[in-house]
Amino acid sequence: MEAIERARRVGETMFAVDIASKDTMGMELLECQPGRAVIRMTVRELHLNGHQICHGGFIFTLADSTFAFACNSYNRNAVAAGASIEFLKPTHLGDVLTCEGVEQVMSGRHGVYDMKVTNQRGEVVALFRGKSAQIPGTVFPE
Amino acid sequence: MEAIERARRVGETMFAVDIASKDTMGMELLECQPGRAVIRMTVRELHLNGHQICHGGFIFTLADSTFAFACNSYNRNAVAAGASIEFLKPTHLGDVLTCEGVEQVMSGRHGVYDMKVTNQRGEVVALFRGKSAQIPGTVFPE
Amino acid sequence: MEAIERARRVGETMFAVDIASKDTMGMELLECQPGRAVIRMTVRELHLNGHQICHGGFIFTLADSTFAFACNSYNRNAVAAGASIEFLKPTHLGDVLTCEGVEQVMSGRHGVYDMKVTNQRGEVVALFRGKSAQIPGTVFPE
Amino acid sequence: MEAIERARRVGETMFAVDIASKDTMGMELLECQPGRAVIRMTVRELHLNGHQICHGGFIFTLADSTFAFACNSYNRNAVAAGASIEFLKPTHLGDVLTCEGVEQVMSGRHGVYDMKVTNQRGEVVALFRGKSAQIPGTVFPE
Repeated sequence: MEAIERARRVGETMFAVDIASKDTMGMELLECQPGRAVIRMTVRELHLNGHQICHGGFIFTLADSTFAFACNSYNRNAVAAGASIEFLKPTHLGDVLTCEGVEQVMSGRHGVYDMKVTNQRGEVVALFRGKSAQIPGTVFPE
Repeated sequence: MEAIERARRVGETMFAVDIASKDTMGMELLECQPGRAVIRMTVRELHLNGHQICHGGFIFTLADSTFAFACNSYNRNAVAAGASIEFLKPTHLGDVLTCEGVEQVMSGRHGVYDMKVTNQRGEVVALFRGKSAQIPGTVFPE
Repeated sequence: MEAIERARRVGETMFAVDIASKDTMGMELLECQPGRAVIRMTVRELHLNGHQICHGGFIFTLADSTFAFACNSYNRNAVAAGASIEFLKPTHLGDVLTCEGVEQVMSGRHGVYDMKVTNQRGEVVALFRGKSAQIPGTVFPE
Repeated sequence: MEAIERARRVGETMFAVDIASKDTMGMELLECQPGRAVIRMTVRELHLNGHQICHGGFIFTLADSTFAFACNSYNRNAVAAGASIEFLKPTHLGDVLTCEGVEQVMSGRHGVYDMKVTNQRGEVVALFRGKSAQIPGTVFPE
């Protein structure tokens, strides 16, 4: 199978059963390519914390989901070992957030991926860096 | 007002309007003290990702909420500037997660807070470190 | 003054008095441009730890110096508020390390900069992310 | 061998050949115990950057060395996979820095260790968190 087709199918397979990202958070998977993914999420009332802004944890969750699709895109199971995030701007009800995640380096079974979350005005609202570890298994049988 | 009473009231005030933590995620605020907070969350179906484990983003969100209560507990508004998390163990449907967060240091208007997330067997499932920045304003008028 | 000329002069001015980077570590400043810098360092005996590899702290120091030049390049004083590093490969006596640092985003007076350290074979040995904060003052009078 | 005696011997063995920490940086190993270490370093001229303060990279290096002793203290080789640091206060010529590092959690072969760097007035100048990975081998034959 071609790498591009494999990544597309990983995305479809994982997203279909990802209750947290799809149903609870309301994300849409826009792209899943080798070492790269793009997810979109609109800030709704359910995302708001006590300051009436999107909970930082859900910005992280958007980035963490994007990271998961990017680092599983080779159809080799991978998990997040850790991550860090910098919050740059608050986001409000109705903001449309897009997260793009790209692999920076793979070294053995460990990878580093960078996610950038922007709003509908193209402003960067957060930067996320994730460390992945490949584990046995595949997303779909191959 | 005493510091302990002030922190308790900050917790009550913030939690009452925190849709994300209370309603969407199902957290319970157990303690809000000066520079410290404890929150509990049971892993439900809505928290599960495609691997049938709790989405790492929601573990982060639990810790980030705990962080918010701890760093606002002086009734001086504070926001998260950034955070990092280490994921140590997966968590499953029905697991009861408790997050305790404690201030490590305040230096000027910046603080560092450490959160520890444990499951019902007392195993540490994640460690989170957050950097806060105080901003103008208070949680409740004083 | 042009931004490029200003950055060049910041580099020259800062490096001339940077005992730690220049004399103690033996770094060479190769480029200092607006929001970007490149520094090179050869691993010498003085850099070795007990495992006969370059001390990870000195890899960090190389990246931290590069970060300092990149984030001061506008001739507005900036300091490191924090940083994280991922170590990907060990480096040995005689390895020639090159660190390139580039600004990712500026938001108010805070910036995020990414540094990549490679060896003479072009392998990535470490990734560093730094958070800067601008403070009053300039590197040279202007 | 007792755990305490083993850790003491790990410290002695590693420190004796650690040119970077001992000779280049001028550190003194004060304690090496199971999962814990303490190192002291006085800020000398060689540590100063262009702002006449101790280079942040050397504060990191002090913490990274302390981390190395703490995570190797079981006489099972361990390496740093990554680390993050928050810089809280600048340090000046003559300041005496003490770094204490303590294991927070071990999970499989991965550990998380927290280092705190204080000056001679007891002020916290930096907080460091390191992630270790055990690898085959021992510090001394046993």
